Amino acid sequence: MTADDLVSLRRDLHRKPEPAWREFYTTARIVAELESRLGDDLAALHVGPDAIAGDKRMAVPDDAELTHWYERAQETGVDEAVLERLEGGATGAVAVLERGEGPTVGLRVDIDALPRRESDDPTHHPVAEGFRSEHEGAMHACGHDAHATMGIGVLERVAESDFSGTLKVFFQPAEEVIGGGKSMAESEHIRDVDALLAVHIGLDHPTGEVVAGIDGFLAVSHLEAEFTGESAHAGGHPEQGRNAVQAMATAVQNLYAIPRHNDGTTRVNAGVVEGGSAANVIPDEARIVAEVRGETTELMEYMKRRTRRVLRSAAEMHDCEVSIETGPEAPSATSDADLVSIVADAAGDTAGIERVLERDELGGSEDATFLMKAVQENGGTACYVGVGTDHPGGHHTATFDVDEASIGHGIDVLAGAIERISHRHT
Amino acid sequence: MTADDLVSLRRDLHRKPEPAWREFYTTARIVAELESRLGDDLAALHVGPDAIAGDKRMAVPDDAELTHWYERAQETGVDEAVLERLEGGATGAVAVLERGEGPTVGLRVDIDALPRRESDDPTHHPVAEGFRSEHEGAMHACGHDAHATMGIGVLERVAESDFSGTLKVFFQPAEEVIGGGKSMAESEHIRDVDALLAVHIGLDHPTGEVVAGIDGFLAVSHLEAEFTGESAHAGGHPEQGRNAVQAMATAVQNLYAIPRHNDGTTRVNAGVVEGGSAANVIPDEARIVAEVRGETTELMEYMKRRTRRVLRSAAEMHDCEVSIETGPEAPSATSDADLVSIVADAAGDTAGIERVLERDELGGSEDATFLMKAVQENGGTACYVGVGTDHPGGHHTATFDVDEASIGHGIDVLAGAIERISHRHT
Amino acid sequence: MTADDLVSLRRDLHRKPEPAWREFYTTARIVAELESRLGDDLAALHVGPDAIAGDKRMAVPDDAELTHWYERAQETGVDEAVLERLEGGATGAVAVLERGEGPTVGLRVDIDALPRRESDDPTHHPVAEGFRSEHEGAMHACGHDAHATMGIGVLERVAESDFSGTLKVFFQPAEEVIGGGKSMAESEHIRDVDALLAVHIGLDHPTGEVVAGIDGFLAVSHLEAEFTGESAHAGGHPEQGRNAVQAMATAVQNLYAIPRHNDGTTRVNAGVVEGGSAANVIPDEARIVAEVRGETTELMEYMKRRTRRVLRSAAEMHDCEVSIETGPEAPSATSDADLVSIVADAAGDTAGIERVLERDELGGSEDATFLMKAVQENGGTACYVGVGTDHPGGHHTATFDVDEASIGHGIDVLAGAIERISHRHT
Amino acid sequence: MTADDLVSLRRDLHRKPEPAWREFYTTARIVAELESRLGDDLAALHVGPDAIAGDKRMAVPDDAELTHWYERAQETGVDEAVLERLEGGATGAVAVLERGEGPTVGLRVDIDALPRRESDDPTHHPVAEGFRSEHEGAMHACGHDAHATMGIGVLERVAESDFSGTLKVFFQPAEEVIGGGKSMAESEHIRDVDALLAVHIGLDHPTGEVVAGIDGFLAVSHLEAEFTGESAHAGGHPEQGRNAVQAMATAVQNLYAIPRHNDGTTRVNAGVVEGGSAANVIPDEARIVAEVRGETTELMEYMKRRTRRVLRSAAEMHDCEVSIETGPEAPSATSDADLVSIVADAAGDTAGIERVLERDELGGSEDATFLMKAVQENGGTACYVGVGTDHPGGHHTATFDVDEASIGHGIDVLAGAIERISHRHT
Repeated sequence: MTADDLVSLRRDLHRKPEPAWREFYTTARIVAELESRLGDDLAALHVGPDAIAGDKRMAVPDDAELTHWYERAQETGVDEAVLERLEGGATGAVAVLERGEGPTVGLRVDIDALPRRESDDPTHHPVAEGFRSEHEGAMHACGHDAHATMGIGVLERVAESDFSGTLKVFFQPAEEVIGGGKSMAESEHIRDVDALLAVHIGLDHPTGEVVAGIDGFLAVSHLEAEFTGESAHAGGHPEQGRNAVQAMATAVQNLYAIPRHNDGTTRVNAGVVEGGSAANVIPDEARIVAEVRGETTELMEYMKRRTRRVLRSAAEMHDCEVSIETGPEAPSATSDADLVSIVADAAGDTAGIERVLERDELGGSEDATFLMKAVQENGGTACYVGVGTDHPGGHHTATFDVDEASIGHGIDVLAGAIERISHRHT
Repeated sequence: MTADDLVSLRRDLHRKPEPAWREFYTTARIVAELESRLGDDLAALHVGPDAIAGDKRMAVPDDAELTHWYERAQETGVDEAVLERLEGGATGAVAVLERGEGPTVGLRVDIDALPRRESDDPTHHPVAEGFRSEHEGAMHACGHDAHATMGIGVLERVAESDFSGTLKVFFQPAEEVIGGGKSMAESEHIRDVDALLAVHIGLDHPTGEVVAGIDGFLAVSHLEAEFTGESAHAGGHPEQGRNAVQAMATAVQNLYAIPRHNDGTTRVNAGVVEGGSAANVIPDEARIVAEVRGETTELMEYMKRRTRRVLRSAAEMHDCEVSIETGPEAPSATSDADLVSIVADAAGDTAGIERVLERDELGGSEDATFLMKAVQENGGTACYVGVGTDHPGGHHTATFDVDEASIGHGIDVLAGAIERISHRHT
Repeated sequence: MTADDLVSLRRDLHRKPEPAWREFYTTARIVAELESRLGDDLAALHVGPDAIAGDKRMAVPDDAELTHWYERAQETGVDEAVLERLEGGATGAVAVLERGEGPTVGLRVDIDALPRRESDDPTHHPVAEGFRSEHEGAMHACGHDAHATMGIGVLERVAESDFSGTLKVFFQPAEEVIGGGKSMAESEHIRDVDALLAVHIGLDHPTGEVVAGIDGFLAVSHLEAEFTGESAHAGGHPEQGRNAVQAMATAVQNLYAIPRHNDGTTRVNAGVVEGGSAANVIPDEARIVAEVRGETTELMEYMKRRTRRVLRSAAEMHDCEVSIETGPEAPSATSDADLVSIVADAAGDTAGIERVLERDELGGSEDATFLMKAVQENGGTACYVGVGTDHPGGHHTATFDVDEASIGHGIDVLAGAIERISHRHT
Repeated sequence: MTADDLVSLRRDLHRKPEPAWREFYTTARIVAELESRLGDDLAALHVGPDAIAGDKRMAVPDDAELTHWYERAQETGVDEAVLERLEGGATGAVAVLERGEGPTVGLRVDIDALPRRESDDPTHHPVAEGFRSEHEGAMHACGHDAHATMGIGVLERVAESDFSGTLKVFFQPAEEVIGGGKSMAESEHIRDVDALLAVHIGLDHPTGEVVAGIDGFLAVSHLEAEFTGESAHAGGHPEQGRNAVQAMATAVQNLYAIPRHNDGTTRVNAGVVEGGSAANVIPDEARIVAEVRGETTELMEYMKRRTRRVLRSAAEMHDCEVSIETGPEAPSATSDADLVSIVADAAGDTAGIERVLERDELGGSEDATFLMKAVQENGGTACYVGVGTDHPGGHHTATFDVDEASIGHGIDVLAGAIERISHRHT
């Protein structure tokens, strides 16, 4: 793949951002690209239900939502045969390259987008260059378009190298909702992986910087609370209502005020809220979609416990009921020292990389930790690599974008590390 | 119209509840019914743009919403020619009956539904009898289906009586959003009305009870606040966010806590709220649709002033911006004593009415007050009549329903009063 | 008493404001004044424990507080023998004038001050004239200094008139804490009263105006909540704390947000709050002294129920305990029509009174209602009289003051009414 | 000093806990003890104004408060001549021992208590042994009674050793309010110190454990906010009030909800709040005493900035004014490696010490950092030592207590380190 190819593929994916479990076009495009570039070179290409443990999927949207995005993908004219295999939101793929004796190396890249509107500021690069999201309300605001592109680029590069062993690239869906990591970690494909790399672009590191091993993944858990009260005429009988929006607002105020913890980092966010139906009706329903995080699983559990208490008491205060569903969770994980030095070594040899950091803290969460833990528990090693990129807006914001040069950097570093892992064993 | 006809018409309207400015099917059905029952008896039938002052409409939804409901109405097979006249949400109608010399009497009935889901409890009467709303999320939860039916019934009854004068029935759209009253009050049709009656069913009065003259309309105003902050990764950089949902929650808590006022009744409701896009993103947008009310216009203005202060300070507290739009407003009004005694007299003579109250307080708001004030300012008189009905759930709740016998009571009382008004002048 | 005497007595009382059950100096001064002016004319002068049902006293402060004020009173050089009878906070007095056959008429005046700091603005009349409160943190901010003065003035005036019957003046302590009314209503002195007058100055009516009969007393109840959590080092282990101040703040926010009620006026106030011990300690204790009111006893009970719910849930939200004590309560009451017209008649004949209103709503609470109800239940009648006065600041505020001319008005109207009551029986 | 002497001195100080700048008895007792034990051995004993830079004192209480504690100290019969030198709250002392050539070594111990009530549980050790605080509402809840005792013990021990050089022991007042560190750091006595040790007991380390060098002091700042609104009659005219307690509660809710920061630890605490004067008056005054902390000065400034925003907006929301005063602040600091290993070495040689940790994080704040920074800026070195003790309750809680055996451990470790510092130079 030339540099132009990489840019063009990344922009095509950027134009069609698909949130968790809706990566129909994205998966089909990845499959098409792999088939045209690697074709018979691939020992296997597992798609959709064959790539994941379908019953371990978390946070899958409802049928109407899935159908809506499926039909959108159909309209692009992408291969219907592939689409059909993804029906019901079993997205993602695992591509396998077999090159004789040697270790089985895994590379995990995630491919989903976020449900947020992209900036339409004329100075925002995707606007200026004409590849802004075609889907209002969805956006590649975390660089997974670049990750998917890297996955393909690494496969092609390794296929052309003297790599000996097996390479599996995991194109993972639904990272943003902590939905896909677990189902890939419980598929059969991870079981024989000796060394796993995962990669993320950006993370406040500029173009030309690489973090060989990232740690400090926050354990994370999603919670969804539904408050139910009783409606009433807001003018005529306010006292007959049991106001679910008041309960929700009381909860939000107190969620963010859960005491900080001396044992380490904690987080809480009421990311989505809604309630009520009309200005003149006392609201009888309200909802909070929240997440809590902790530097350790214990800290995450502390936050979860306090969150439940807040939600329950807020409901009671306004005489409402509340049902709390715990959504997806992801554990913490650590990068293994031996892989970290291999990656650092590869990065040191990569043109364009001016600075290599051994370690850094993520300060966020990632469901790559499911795959990392699975490999580590099987006796393998794992490492999460950061590839710097100049990003004008923060991750998850409307003006996020990547410096496309860093896609090539990522491919160089990852392919270099994979070759080094192969050589180590010989 | 037989009692069966009344029930059957009311149930048809109940099945197809259409919220404000979306009364496409409802208007077309009213027109069809009037044409088949009264035909050439009507001196005029003004429909849609001819019935209202289109530029005075308030709280009109956006085109996508209007189109959605318009297409729903088309699917019912209702008269396309009528529908076309309503395009763009100019709904409603004014029917005119001319019967020689005499006063011009007006009757105002409202026809819109509420955006809330109807109960599906098997004991809820519309479920049991099979006329529950066909539109999930919309419901005749305030009896306007009965009001529309009464309007037609009164026209037919008066046409058959010895009434002398002119009768105009105003089928008013968009009462629930305080959206239609003003545009009807500013149309030409109201100008020559000497005596105006308006009617509401229920209001916590049982079947067999009539309130001749209702007062105590609360002045009301809608406000919509949009909070804008800045998104950030909720795990990685919570401190970079400016959290619009925290601003909204702070506002909700303090809105309901605006001090009560010694001069009389006040109300506030944060009827609809929403914010945020994903669990792991600090929310950069949130919204409150609120209403405030006051026993007098001054009290309503007091609440509005305090509401603005709360909204602005809540935004500032979380470093957000807020834009506040004032929505529709309606004034207070009073029923004139001479009409009140005429209605009381008519109610006293009506079979099935066991108790007649001269006066009661509404304790809610109504944009019929625009029409009442318009008539009163032209030297006419106005009266707002309450027709009791056993209603299992409160107004605006999911189990609201009417005792269909009271539709007939309403027609009897109103027609009786209209005839008496006519006779008074001779 | 000359006009100068009245002013001088009122100013002396104003200078030494004593809050509820601490009216040591005030009672002693009243006793001294009565003895010097009426001496043997009085049939009886019941002081302290003889004037009230001591075991029915409510909201009595602790011994340290009582001693503090007792010693202050001692320092003024007032009669020690009287003071000794008041020990332990049994303050107040009942003066009895017997003049032959006739009805027993009661007049109730209250004598306590408020625990608030008086303005020291040089334009504030008591500052300008040198009679500002000598006790920082206490103030006659509701005119009870004028009431006490009126009570003495009325006794003297009636003693000089041709009044026939018995006059009892109740100098009632502890009105502001709803503490004294009940204990006077349960003393023996009220039992034979045929007609009771009570009086209040001001109430937003200007000098020269009299309200013959005030109604609309709000039923009222005090509540005191103690939150108990657990302290912790605020820097080292915030998560080990259970924060009573957070619980208290959550409660305050939600108390004021208790839904307004359609049946009538409601009120709530978190009048005194406190919590915590040091900036660097997570607070383990906090307290709210609140009051709720309602236009009816039912509405007051509604507010009490909701208040309890808020307090309990706020505690639970922050893992605290809360103990809630219900403090004093007072009922509602109504002025009897026959007394109202007698007072109106007397006011109409009073020099300086330019406007007489038959009725007005208080919109506040009063424990005079205990005495009114007691008399009414015994078959007597009662009436609460408002005597207008120009007051620059509102009741209970730091700049409240009375126009001293209205003290004379009050004496004229009340004495006039008492004489009329006497004559009615002859 | 025998072990019994140590226990007896510590218990005497424990019995008479004196908060910041009120350490009258404590200082006098220390002076008396030093004079009786060391007498002419001391080269100098600077007391009160001679020990500190008086104009750099922070958070000094008002005269009434100082007088109250001064008089309490007088009642104990302690040396009046010493007391007189402390008048006005210039407490503390610096004792100097000169022993020939060698380095000047400093030891800083703090001596103030906390304004909180000690537990009266019969199982609480000071209760069981009869040395519970004699001052209700004050308590040695952070072990400074043990620190003062150690300071005297170390002086005596070093005096008896072959130490060569100068030893200065700083008995520092007002640590808990961040009030005294700065004024000692700016006195002349610190200027020639080559090596400074500071010590704290407990910190969640058990008896037998020593932390040679503590880091991770949080920068801290105190803020005091006064809200001013307008009072009104809570029943009669709630709308005329501007409610300072509502403003305060809104602020408290939002203070604890200031976003966590990705760069490190932050803290906020509304440690003392109060407001209002009576249940029936809308509160016109309220107050928050808060503190914020940050792992770095930048993080502390971030918290301060957000705190100011919250306080200002909360005031504005309820139409109140707010004045914000910034109180004392303390910086962060680091223990120097060479001193850390000397202390570790000394601890390793101390009987009863079973475990020596090189480093630990405090996770709290300390104004010893002012002295440490002063020494370090002059080219000296500093080290903050932790001496473990079994403490049943957490620091700053009502059941805090120390295992008195660890007082001896502290003296051994500190004296051992001071001797080693002396020898290093020879």
